Amino acid sequence: MSQTRRHTRTERRSTVTSPLANIPWQAIQNRMSPLSRLDAESEEKIHEASMRILEEIGIAFMDDEALDLWAWAGAKVDRARQLVRLDRHLVLELVAKAPQQFTWRARNPAHNLTIGTNHINFVPNGGVVFTQDMDRDRRPGEMQDYRNLLKLVQMCNALHFTGEQLVVPHDIPVSFRHLQRSLAALTLTNKAYMEAAHGRIIAGDAVQMAKIVFGEDITQSHEPSLGGVINASSPLRYDERMIGGMLTYARANQALIITPFILAGAMSPITMAAAVAQQNAEALAGIAFTQLVRAGSPVVYGGFATNIDMRSGSPAFGTPEGAWATIAGGQMARRYGVPYRNSGTLNNSNVPDAQAAYETMWAIWPAVLSYANVVMHAVGWLEGGLTVSYEKMIMDMENLAMFQHFFQDVEISDETLALDMIAEVGPGGHHFGTPHTQARYRTEFYSPFLSDRQNHENWVQSGVGDAATRANKVWKQVLKDYEQPPIDEATREELEDFVARREKELQGVELYS
Amino acid sequence: MSQTRRHTRTERRSTVTSPLANIPWQAIQNRMSPLSRLDAESEEKIHEASMRILEEIGIAFMDDEALDLWAWAGAKVDRARQLVRLDRHLVLELVAKAPQQFTWRARNPAHNLTIGTNHINFVPNGGVVFTQDMDRDRRPGEMQDYRNLLKLVQMCNALHFTGEQLVVPHDIPVSFRHLQRSLAALTLTNKAYMEAAHGRIIAGDAVQMAKIVFGEDITQSHEPSLGGVINASSPLRYDERMIGGMLTYARANQALIITPFILAGAMSPITMAAAVAQQNAEALAGIAFTQLVRAGSPVVYGGFATNIDMRSGSPAFGTPEGAWATIAGGQMARRYGVPYRNSGTLNNSNVPDAQAAYETMWAIWPAVLSYANVVMHAVGWLEGGLTVSYEKMIMDMENLAMFQHFFQDVEISDETLALDMIAEVGPGGHHFGTPHTQARYRTEFYSPFLSDRQNHENWVQSGVGDAATRANKVWKQVLKDYEQPPIDEATREELEDFVARREKELQGVELYS
Repeated sequence: MSQTRRHTRTERRSTVTSPLANIPWQAIQNRMSPLSRLDAESEEKIHEASMRILEEIGIAFMDDEALDLWAWAGAKVDRARQLVRLDRHLVLELVAKAPQQFTWRARNPAHNLTIGTNHINFVPNGGVVFTQDMDRDRRPGEMQDYRNLLKLVQMCNALHFTGEQLVVPHDIPVSFRHLQRSLAALTLTNKAYMEAAHGRIIAGDAVQMAKIVFGEDITQSHEPSLGGVINASSPLRYDERMIGGMLTYARANQALIITPFILAGAMSPITMAAAVAQQNAEALAGIAFTQLVRAGSPVVYGGFATNIDMRSGSPAFGTPEGAWATIAGGQMARRYGVPYRNSGTLNNSNVPDAQAAYETMWAIWPAVLSYANVVMHAVGWLEGGLTVSYEKMIMDMENLAMFQHFFQDVEISDETLALDMIAEVGPGGHHFGTPHTQARYRTEFYSPFLSDRQNHENWVQSGVGDAATRANKVWKQVLKDYEQPPIDEATREELEDFVARREKELQGVELYS
Repeated sequence: MSQTRRHTRTERRSTVTSPLANIPWQAIQNRMSPLSRLDAESEEKIHEASMRILEEIGIAFMDDEALDLWAWAGAKVDRARQLVRLDRHLVLELVAKAPQQFTWRARNPAHNLTIGTNHINFVPNGGVVFTQDMDRDRRPGEMQDYRNLLKLVQMCNALHFTGEQLVVPHDIPVSFRHLQRSLAALTLTNKAYMEAAHGRIIAGDAVQMAKIVFGEDITQSHEPSLGGVINASSPLRYDERMIGGMLTYARANQALIITPFILAGAMSPITMAAAVAQQNAEALAGIAFTQLVRAGSPVVYGGFATNIDMRSGSPAFGTPEGAWATIAGGQMARRYGVPYRNSGTLNNSNVPDAQAAYETMWAIWPAVLSYANVVMHAVGWLEGGLTVSYEKMIMDMENLAMFQHFFQDVEISDETLALDMIAEVGPGGHHFGTPHTQARYRTEFYSPFLSDRQNHENWVQSGVGDAATRANKVWKQVLKDYEQPPIDEATREELEDFVARREKELQGVELYS
């Protein structure tokens, strides 16, 4: 793309007021104290239980290279059972090497992110199999959906990351999916980049693609340009795929979000106390391992504990138990001085209805109030994460924008207290037409793009329908409005060449999806 | 009703597992620190601005008796403008007489409530004109709706109050509405009683009816058996109707919930700082007035500040601005050591859809996390409070039950940390069948009555539909399950006689609705 062309685009861009650009791109800080549910004694008990899990029961690391590293570090390694027993001093010493806060670089440096303390960053849905919208039935995701979702992500100022595995692109061969996902993420968006840390090959390719975009020297910096989620195979187990991802990203100084996925009553004892203690043990073991691989490499403590529905045996999302675990998990992460990850739109609903919305809120309110520095799955989920809904994505984007506004500082000054105006209008008057109101009415309040505030008569006459019906119109509009962010032509060619080369090399290679 | 008959009912009751009784009736305490947005300096600035509003601008009290009382107390009274200027020492001295916490008695003493500190109590919707359900169109409310709503309230263990003005019963003459509302509330439910504090006559009748049920001596106790909401006619004004209610309830030692209703940009300057400062001034003036009428009478600081939608000029509910004001308002109430009221289901939607649900969550999460001791409108609202929806009521009841579960203490002990089980199951196992899980699986987690957790295939096959469709079935089931709580036959006759007598006396008398 020529310099001139790029300029034109940038200028045109600034005049577009696409629905999802109703707020500026902006970092979020939560200046309230984080929620806290555990008293000092309870927190200590959970810590102590976790330490005993690590010391007495141990964690399985199902990979020889990992077992070698642990043996080298002095852990008690049971090769036959692939089991590692970790002394608390060893674990805590390693965890202490992890940075408390770090910068996650984005393709557009204006979109660089701070991960840690009270900074809140939103990531779109991930790990999803199906997609649905109101025009077409639920169906397996395809690459076209993947691109569409990325375009919505790029256009939504309230989202901070590209996300990873927004939906499975079933029409792409398994061995090539990561390449196509990353190519799309790095060219259709300019936000902070994620790719699945699934085994050495996928993760290695992601590091190479990050190098093409961000430079060969990214492995020398503790500021990652790439990152991905690691799920423990709970209970108490990291499998080869995950360890491969951890080794590859940590060695390259890229970010790892270590997230045990625990359904209490299935992968842990049914009591949430045990679920959070086990989560803590698993997360700390994973974090310690990243620091053993490379001290100081960026890593995040992930919490993803909720309950099972004991009637159906299926996972239950957006629950009071999950909310408790989110808060308790955040407290534990702060204890060890590492950034925290939780989730935004966990829900069980099959349609973007009231249940989808309220369960989502049961996930995201505790997350943002617990200093979840990385809020995964912050848009789009339905069906416990099996499906991404275009309409639900738009609804969630409205709520993220509301959170961005909510966390902004409210100025308390003579100017905003406006005693002169209160005096002038006096008892029983109204403030509609005052200069103080007139000067601010376009900018003072959050202005929704989806929520409808018409009275009943107007709403009936307008025929705009319910939130899902309106969301259907919004995502179509945004896809029309979409403009690709500028990218250096040589970089783009290099990415495409890399993908073409790797697709030849990986032809027929069996990869984790 | 004979003693025998009543016993039979009580026994039968205990075996009913109606959907809304999926949790026990239970008081709620929020053991987390309250949310806090204002630093000490900002809080001080808001306080100072409020004091200057009271001292320099003044509050209109549009009632001669009120002006007499203020003059007697030493306030600067401008009779011509019905304006009272209040020295800060006078206001704060009076506010200091208000109890920090009090017991609100219920007809069933097991349902007595604690109002103050970290106790959270839920009240149904109030002040509503229309009703809707999925079978019938939106329509003006009728007495049959009123009774139905009360039956749902009684059956919902997560609701603590009868509520007031659940919907306008348009088929009852205006002069009799309060009598029929109260008769229904006091006989169809046994929860804490509310009736509109609208002028001397309505409020006086409510006090009489409370005496019939709770005893003649209720006015001697600071533990109210009755209470109602007072809305300032913002900006800076209490009208005759509200003052009549305040005088009547405060003199009888019944509870007053003093709530300025402020839409920033209309009833106050557009900046939320000014809205909250003005709310604070109005609330303190109202609270001080109740203590001037009767020192120590139970009173609550109400917050109800949100923004106007600047495109339509209509109120905007469930907004980031409203959430900020809820938190700031709670902080101010705590500063003065008085209980706090806020609201639960504020939303603008015309239907019980995702917008209705997420806006509701934007109201209730900040409210319960800000120690709103009385959460009004905690179920049922649609259309900015113009309509109560039967289906929305059921959705909200599910969420209140979830909050009840969420706020319960989670035991952290050797028993719940279950290290022995974690060791026994070991890495890669599962906890479904362990004795620890089996012993708890019926009771450990919140079990929803509305939320559906079926996977997609089962959900399609079951044909249960979306949340609103399922809620429609639930409220019909609960109305079938409803059983009237026992009431002393003599008491009931006395209430009915009182209502009959007052209806004769009030024939043709023009009353506030």
